[in-house]
Amino acid sequence: MNKKKIFNDPIYGFISVPFEIILDIIDHPYVQRLRRIRQLGLTHLVYPGALHTRFHHALGSMHLMTQAIETIRSKGHEITQPEAEAVTIAILLHDVGHGPFSHALEHSVVEGIHHEEVSLMIMDRLNQHFEGKLSMAISIFKDDYPKKFLHQLVSSQLDMDRLDYLNRDSFYTGVSEGVVSSDRIIKMLEVVNDQLVIEEKSIYSIEKFIIARRLMYWQVYLHKTVLAAEMLLVKILLRARQLAMAGHELFTTPALREFLYHQHTRSDFNAQPELLLRFCELDDYDIFTSIKVWVHHDDKILSRLCMGMVHRKLYKIKISKQPISQLVVDEYTTCAQSVFETNAEDASYFVFTGDIENNAYNPAHDKINILSKDGTLIDISQASDQLNIQALEGVVKKFYLCYPAECIPL
Amino acid sequence: MNKKKIFNDPIYGFISVPFEIILDIIDHPYVQRLRRIRQLGLTHLVYPGALHTRFHHALGSMHLMTQAIETIRSKGHEITQPEAEAVTIAILLHDVGHGPFSHALEHSVVEGIHHEEVSLMIMDRLNQHFEGKLSMAISIFKDDYPKKFLHQLVSSQLDMDRLDYLNRDSFYTGVSEGVVSSDRIIKMLEVVNDQLVIEEKSIYSIEKFIIARRLMYWQVYLHKTVLAAEMLLVKILLRARQLAMAGHELFTTPALREFLYHQHTRSDFNAQPELLLRFCELDDYDIFTSIKVWVHHDDKILSRLCMGMVHRKLYKIKISKQPISQLVVDEYTTCAQSVFETNAEDASYFVFTGDIENNAYNPAHDKINILSKDGTLIDISQASDQLNIQALEGVVKKFYLCYPAECIPL
Amino acid sequence: MNKKKIFNDPIYGFISVPFEIILDIIDHPYVQRLRRIRQLGLTHLVYPGALHTRFHHALGSMHLMTQAIETIRSKGHEITQPEAEAVTIAILLHDVGHGPFSHALEHSVVEGIHHEEVSLMIMDRLNQHFEGKLSMAISIFKDDYPKKFLHQLVSSQLDMDRLDYLNRDSFYTGVSEGVVSSDRIIKMLEVVNDQLVIEEKSIYSIEKFIIARRLMYWQVYLHKTVLAAEMLLVKILLRARQLAMAGHELFTTPALREFLYHQHTRSDFNAQPELLLRFCELDDYDIFTSIKVWVHHDDKILSRLCMGMVHRKLYKIKISKQPISQLVVDEYTTCAQSVFETNAEDASYFVFTGDIENNAYNPAHDKINILSKDGTLIDISQASDQLNIQALEGVVKKFYLCYPAECIPL
Amino acid sequence: MNKKKIFNDPIYGFISVPFEIILDIIDHPYVQRLRRIRQLGLTHLVYPGALHTRFHHALGSMHLMTQAIETIRSKGHEITQPEAEAVTIAILLHDVGHGPFSHALEHSVVEGIHHEEVSLMIMDRLNQHFEGKLSMAISIFKDDYPKKFLHQLVSSQLDMDRLDYLNRDSFYTGVSEGVVSSDRIIKMLEVVNDQLVIEEKSIYSIEKFIIARRLMYWQVYLHKTVLAAEMLLVKILLRARQLAMAGHELFTTPALREFLYHQHTRSDFNAQPELLLRFCELDDYDIFTSIKVWVHHDDKILSRLCMGMVHRKLYKIKISKQPISQLVVDEYTTCAQSVFETNAEDASYFVFTGDIENNAYNPAHDKINILSKDGTLIDISQASDQLNIQALEGVVKKFYLCYPAECIPL
Repeated sequence: MNKKKIFNDPIYGFISVPFEIILDIIDHPYVQRLRRIRQLGLTHLVYPGALHTRFHHALGSMHLMTQAIETIRSKGHEITQPEAEAVTIAILLHDVGHGPFSHALEHSVVEGIHHEEVSLMIMDRLNQHFEGKLSMAISIFKDDYPKKFLHQLVSSQLDMDRLDYLNRDSFYTGVSEGVVSSDRIIKMLEVVNDQLVIEEKSIYSIEKFIIARRLMYWQVYLHKTVLAAEMLLVKILLRARQLAMAGHELFTTPALREFLYHQHTRSDFNAQPELLLRFCELDDYDIFTSIKVWVHHDDKILSRLCMGMVHRKLYKIKISKQPISQLVVDEYTTCAQSVFETNAEDASYFVFTGDIENNAYNPAHDKINILSKDGTLIDISQASDQLNIQALEGVVKKFYLCYPAECIPL
Repeated sequence: MNKKKIFNDPIYGFISVPFEIILDIIDHPYVQRLRRIRQLGLTHLVYPGALHTRFHHALGSMHLMTQAIETIRSKGHEITQPEAEAVTIAILLHDVGHGPFSHALEHSVVEGIHHEEVSLMIMDRLNQHFEGKLSMAISIFKDDYPKKFLHQLVSSQLDMDRLDYLNRDSFYTGVSEGVVSSDRIIKMLEVVNDQLVIEEKSIYSIEKFIIARRLMYWQVYLHKTVLAAEMLLVKILLRARQLAMAGHELFTTPALREFLYHQHTRSDFNAQPELLLRFCELDDYDIFTSIKVWVHHDDKILSRLCMGMVHRKLYKIKISKQPISQLVVDEYTTCAQSVFETNAEDASYFVFTGDIENNAYNPAHDKINILSKDGTLIDISQASDQLNIQALEGVVKKFYLCYPAECIPL
Repeated sequence: MNKKKIFNDPIYGFISVPFEIILDIIDHPYVQRLRRIRQLGLTHLVYPGALHTRFHHALGSMHLMTQAIETIRSKGHEITQPEAEAVTIAILLHDVGHGPFSHALEHSVVEGIHHEEVSLMIMDRLNQHFEGKLSMAISIFKDDYPKKFLHQLVSSQLDMDRLDYLNRDSFYTGVSEGVVSSDRIIKMLEVVNDQLVIEEKSIYSIEKFIIARRLMYWQVYLHKTVLAAEMLLVKILLRARQLAMAGHELFTTPALREFLYHQHTRSDFNAQPELLLRFCELDDYDIFTSIKVWVHHDDKILSRLCMGMVHRKLYKIKISKQPISQLVVDEYTTCAQSVFETNAEDASYFVFTGDIENNAYNPAHDKINILSKDGTLIDISQASDQLNIQALEGVVKKFYLCYPAECIPL
Repeated sequence: MNKKKIFNDPIYGFISVPFEIILDIIDHPYVQRLRRIRQLGLTHLVYPGALHTRFHHALGSMHLMTQAIETIRSKGHEITQPEAEAVTIAILLHDVGHGPFSHALEHSVVEGIHHEEVSLMIMDRLNQHFEGKLSMAISIFKDDYPKKFLHQLVSSQLDMDRLDYLNRDSFYTGVSEGVVSSDRIIKMLEVVNDQLVIEEKSIYSIEKFIIARRLMYWQVYLHKTVLAAEMLLVKILLRARQLAMAGHELFTTPALREFLYHQHTRSDFNAQPELLLRFCELDDYDIFTSIKVWVHHDDKILSRLCMGMVHRKLYKIKISKQPISQLVVDEYTTCAQSVFETNAEDASYFVFTGDIENNAYNPAHDKINILSKDGTLIDISQASDQLNIQALEGVVKKFYLCYPAECIPL
C-alpha cells in the first residue's frame, strides 16, 4: 500500500487521494508531465504569483469531485464505487492532453490538433497500461455513459474543473475577487432527471460565480498585457517555424524539433503511435529554453522578438471596442519598418491586430438549471429576480492592436 | 500621550488611531456605549458568529478612511490635516446615534425619531464637550462643507461605512461571498470636479461589489429567519408598550422605563436635554434582559412571545413574490386564536404579513461615477460593457407571512 | 425531519450537525442559553472582536470531533455509531454548566460551585428529558466508559475543546499567532493501547501548538488589561453581595436576586431542583444590566466601580515577577482612601494585589504521547530533538497590583 | 513616468514600488532573470504549490522593508530619503546572484563560487549601469555604512528577507504553520544604539517565529524527499560534468555548456567580465531542459538518474540520528551494482550518505535583542520567562542514506 496519499494545497489545506489506482495514475509520467506545464502560460509576467501548474489544478479538481460525490450521495442519489472512481479519474485527466502554452502552440506549431483530442488519445494509452480500468472514466469523459450527470460534473457550466480553476487562478494571481465559494456551491448541487442542477437558495452564489468568472476573464485571462505576451509567443513560434521550413538551423530540444521541423496532422498522430510519446515530452521548458537561446540567433526578427520575451519588453497594446482602423495599422507598420529596417511583411511580426471575446453566461451552449422549491427547473437567467444574468448573455467582443514600444502613439 | 493607539482587528490586522483627539473621542461614554450595540441585531440567531458591534464597525470605517485619505492625497488632491482629522471623526461617529435594535425600536418604542437625527444631537453634545473641535466634522457629516467629496467618503454609494460593513458582516456571518475588495476599490478612488469617482479599470470590482451587496441583502440582512426574529422583537415591544400604556407593571431598567412608559417625540428631545442622556443609557442589555424577565409575566401573549425569543422558537415565515392573500391570513389567524385562546386582535401578535424590498443599485438616489480613460465620467450602469448593472436598478419587493409553528401549513 | 443542519462558521466554513438527536439537544433552552454567554468574558474590552459565545465554541468543538472520529476510524479503530454519537454529545455539552463570567461569579456570588459539577447536573437533567439517550455521553464525559480514548477526545492535552478554543479565540481576537493547525493535528491522531496519541511526524506541529497556547495565555487570557477588567467585575460583585447581605436594596433580575441575596451551597442545588433552573436563567445580560443600573446606586463604592466598568475606566495594573511589596500597596491604599474619601477596608476595592500563573506544558497532569515510527510511545518533552518543550514544564508565576488611575505611580 | 507601480501579491495584497529608480532596477534583465529561478528549487516535487520565484520573494522583501522604514521613522529615528531608497535597493538585490538550484550547482558545476559574491558582482555592474546610484545600497549590503541597523534590516536574525521567505514558503507550500506575523513583528522593531531590537511585548511572537522557522526547516527545507530530489540533481550534474570532462558530447544550452565544460574559478570571473554575463543567462530552464534530453543519453547512469528526476522516481531515503553504518551502505551498494550492472564507484551515484543540520537559534552568530521596559537589552534566550529558547541553541545534526527503490530494505 502506497502511503503518500495526501498533498498539501494552499487552497484546500489537504488533498487526499481517494482511490488506490488514482495514486498510480498520478505517478504515471503522462500525469507527472503536467507538473511542468503552467496553468496560465505567461500570465505570471503580469501576476508574478501565477506559476501554478496543470498538475496542481488536476489534483484540486479531483478534491472538489470527492466533495461533490459526497454531497450528491447524501441527497439520496446513487453513485456506485466504480462510478465514483471513474468520475474522479475523468476529472483528474480532463486536461492531460494540454501541451505547453496550448493556445500559442495550437496557433503555430501543432495547428489543427486540439488538446481535447490529445487528452483522449492519452487516456486511451493509459487505459491500455492499466488494463482497461479507465474504460468507464473515458466513457464518462466522452459523455457516452448512461448517468449523464456524471459527465456534467466533469464538463459543464458548473463542473469541478471550472470551480477549481477560478479559485486557483484567483488565489495565485492575488486577484482575490475571482474567488468563488466552491464549498457553498457544491453543497447546493442536486440531481434531477439525471441532470446536475442547483438548489434555489444558492441563486445569489451562482450570480456571484458568473460575475467572478467575467471579472477573471477581463482582469486575468484576457488582461491586455497577458495578451501581448501570448501574442509575442505566437509570433516567435511562427517566425521559428518559418525559418525551420526554410531550412535554417535553430537550437531546439529533440522533442520540439519534431514538431517545429514537421507539419504533423491529426492523421499523423493516428498513423505514428510514437508521435504522441514525443508530444508528451514537450513542456514549458522546451519552449522557453529555446527562446532563451534564440535571443542570439542570426535572424534579426527572431532574435529581437525573443529578447522581448526574455527581458519582458513586451508589445505595447491598445484595446478598443471598435475594430482598429487600417490607417492606424499602416502608420505603425511604417514606423516598425523603419525601426527594424525590414519590409512590410516582416513588420507584421511587430505590428498586428486581432480580437478577443467573452460571454459571461451562455445558456444556448450549456445552461445552469436552478431547482425551485416547487420542484421545477428554471434557467438561472430566468430564475434570477432581476434581469441581470440575462443581460450577460451577449458576447462581448473587443479589438486589439499590438505595436512596438519604439513607435510612440501619435 | 495615551499609548494604546492600536486595536487588533481580525479583518484588517491592526487598526491604528490616526489622531490624538480621536482617541479621546473613542474613550467617551457615548462611543464606548457602541460596544454594547450589535451591528446586526438578532442576526446571530441565524449566523452564530454575527456578534460584532457598532463600535468595531466604527473603528473599521475609520481605518478605511485613513487608507482613502492616503490614496486621494497620493493622486495629487489636497486634504489638509484638519480636513483629514474632521472626515475621520465624521466616519467614526456616523452611526453614533443608533439605539439597540434600531429598526425594532423605531417601529415600537421611539417612533418617529430617526437614528441619524440622534447621531447629530450626540455629535453636537460631543462638540460642546470638545470645545468646538468637531465643528468641521459635523459640517462634513451634514454635507455643508465646501469640499463635497469629503462627505461622499462618509456617505455615498462607495463610502467607507459601506465598504467596512459589507466586509465585516460577511466576515462574522461566515458568508464569505459578501467580501468586497476594499483595498482594491479604495486604491482606485479618484476625485474629479469635487466628486468622488472610481477609475475605469476597477469596473469589474464595482460590479462585484454591487452583486456582493445584493447577495448580503437576501442572504443576511433580509434572511427570512432573521426577519422572523426581528418581527418577533417588534411584536414583543409593541405588546409591552400596550401593557405599559394600560398601566400594567413591567420589569425594566430605569432607562428603558423612560421610553416604554412615555411616548417621547422629537420635540421632547429638544426640550429636555437629559432625555438624550437617558437614551444613551439604552443598549442591547436593557432590551434583552427585560425580555428574559417578561417570560414570566402574567400577560400570556407577552410571556409567550418572549419565551419564543429566549428559547429561539421563532415564527415560521413564508416569503412570496406576490402579496399574501387575506384568505390565507385568516386561516392562520383562526388557528392562532384557537391555539392561544385569544381574540382576533391579539392573534395578530402571532399571525401577520408585511413586505421587504431592496434595490441593488439606485442611480436616481446616488450614482457611482466611473472615470473613463479619456477623462469623462459615466454612471456605472452605462459604463459596464453589458447591461447587467442597469438590469439591477429596479426595486425587488417581496412579501412575507409570519405564523406560529403550531399552525401547520395546509 | 429538521432541515437546518448546517451552521455557518467563519472559521470552518460550514458546521454540519452529524446526528438527529444532536439537533434536538442544540435546540434545548439549556444549550440555547450558551448563546448569551461570551466565551472570553470581558476580553472584548481589549480585543473588540472577542465577542464569540460558548454556543459557537460548542458547535466548533463538535465539528472537530466529527473530523477526529473520521480520522481514527480510517486508521482501523472501531468507533461504533452509538459511540460516535455519544462522544459528540459529550463534547457539545462539555461546557454547558458555565455561568456568565464564570471565574468572576465563582469568586463572589456562587462560591464553591464549580462549573464542571453544574455541567454534570445539567447533563443529567437533559438525560431525563431525552429518556436516557445521553447515558453513554455522560459516561464518556465522566471517564467511566471502557474505551478511554473517547474521553481523551473530550478532555486531555489534545482534546477537541482546546483545539477549537485556541483557534476560535485567536480568530476573534485577531491575535493570529494563536492559530493552530487543527486539521493537521487531527489527521495525525492515532490510538495505541486505548490511548490517544499523535504520530511522530507531527512533532513540530505539536511544539507549535504548545507555543501558541503559551502565547495566547500571556497575550490574551492573562493580558493585564483583561485581568484588570475581570478583577473589577469580581470587586463589583463582592460589593453588591456585601450590600445585599447587609439588607440594602439593589436592582437585579429575579434570577440574579436568587444568588445575590442567598449564599447557596452545593447541597442546596441537590436539595432544591428548581435552583438549577434558576441558575440556567442567568447569563451575561443579568450581570451587565445590573451593573449599568448600579452606576446610579447610592453606595459610592459600588457606583464608582460600576461606572468604571460601563465607561471602560479600568484599574491601572502592574505586573511583576516578584511579589508586590506591602509598602507599595500601602502607599496606593493611602492615596485611594484620600481620593475616594473612604476607610482602609473599603479602599481595598480599589487597591489590591494577586497572582497569576501558567504552565505551557504539564506532563505530570496529562501527557502528550508521541507515537514513534518503531511503535514506542514517548512523551513530547522527551521526543523533541531538543529540550525546548522540557524547558516549558515549569510553572510561570507573576504578581499584579491593581490601583486607580487617580493614584499616579511615584 | 512609468505607471506600473503595483504588483499583485497573494500574500500582501498589493506591493507598491516605493521609488522611481527601483522600477528601473526591477526592469533590468539581471532582476527579470529571477523570474526564472524558483525560490525553493525542487521542493515543488513534494509540495506542488511551491513554485514561487526569487523575483517574487525580492518584491515581497522590498514590501516589508517599506513597512519597517515607516515603523522605525514613526518611533523617532531618522532614515533619510536616500537611505530609505538605498536600504530598499539592498533588500531587493540581496539574492540577485543566486543561480538556478544554487546549492546543487555550487556542489557540482560552479564549485567554490558563492552566490553572495555573485550578488555583489552583479550589484557592481548595475551600479555602473545606473551611474553610481547604487553605491549607498552596496555599502549597506556590505555593512560598510555607518548606520548599522540598516544593514540589519537586510541581513540579520530578523531581517526582511527572512520574514518574507518564511511567510512566502509557508504560503505556497501550504504548510500553514510556518506563517509568522510579519506585521506584528515589524511594528515592534526599534533601534537602540544603532542596533535593531524588538520591544519586549512581542517576546512570544519572537518565540513563535523561532519555532516556525524550526518547523519549516524540518518540514520543508530539509524534508527528506526534498533532500532526495536535491541530491539526485547534484548526482546528475556531477555525472554530466564527469562525462563532459571526459570529452563526451552532451546536449546543453550554450550558457550551461560554458560552465559544464570548463571549471571556472573565482579569478576567472574577475579576469573575464563576460563570464558573469554568461552566468546570468543560466536559470532553471537550462538545467531542467538538459536533464529532460539526457534521459535519452547513451550513458546508462546519466540516463537513469535523469529519468528518475523527470518521472519523479526519486531515491528512497532514510534519516537517522546516528551516522549510517558502512555495513548498511555496503549492502545497498552491492544491490545497486547488481541492479544497474555497474562497478562500485559508479554505484555511488545511487547509494550514498550525508548529513544535514539546523539550529533554530544561534546567538553566537547573530542575536535577537529584546528591549525591556526599563530600557536594557537582553538576548531573547535570556529574556524569555522560561528556558525554551536557550534549549534551541544547540545544533541538531541528522544523517541520511539514499538508495534506489529497487533495493528493498532488509
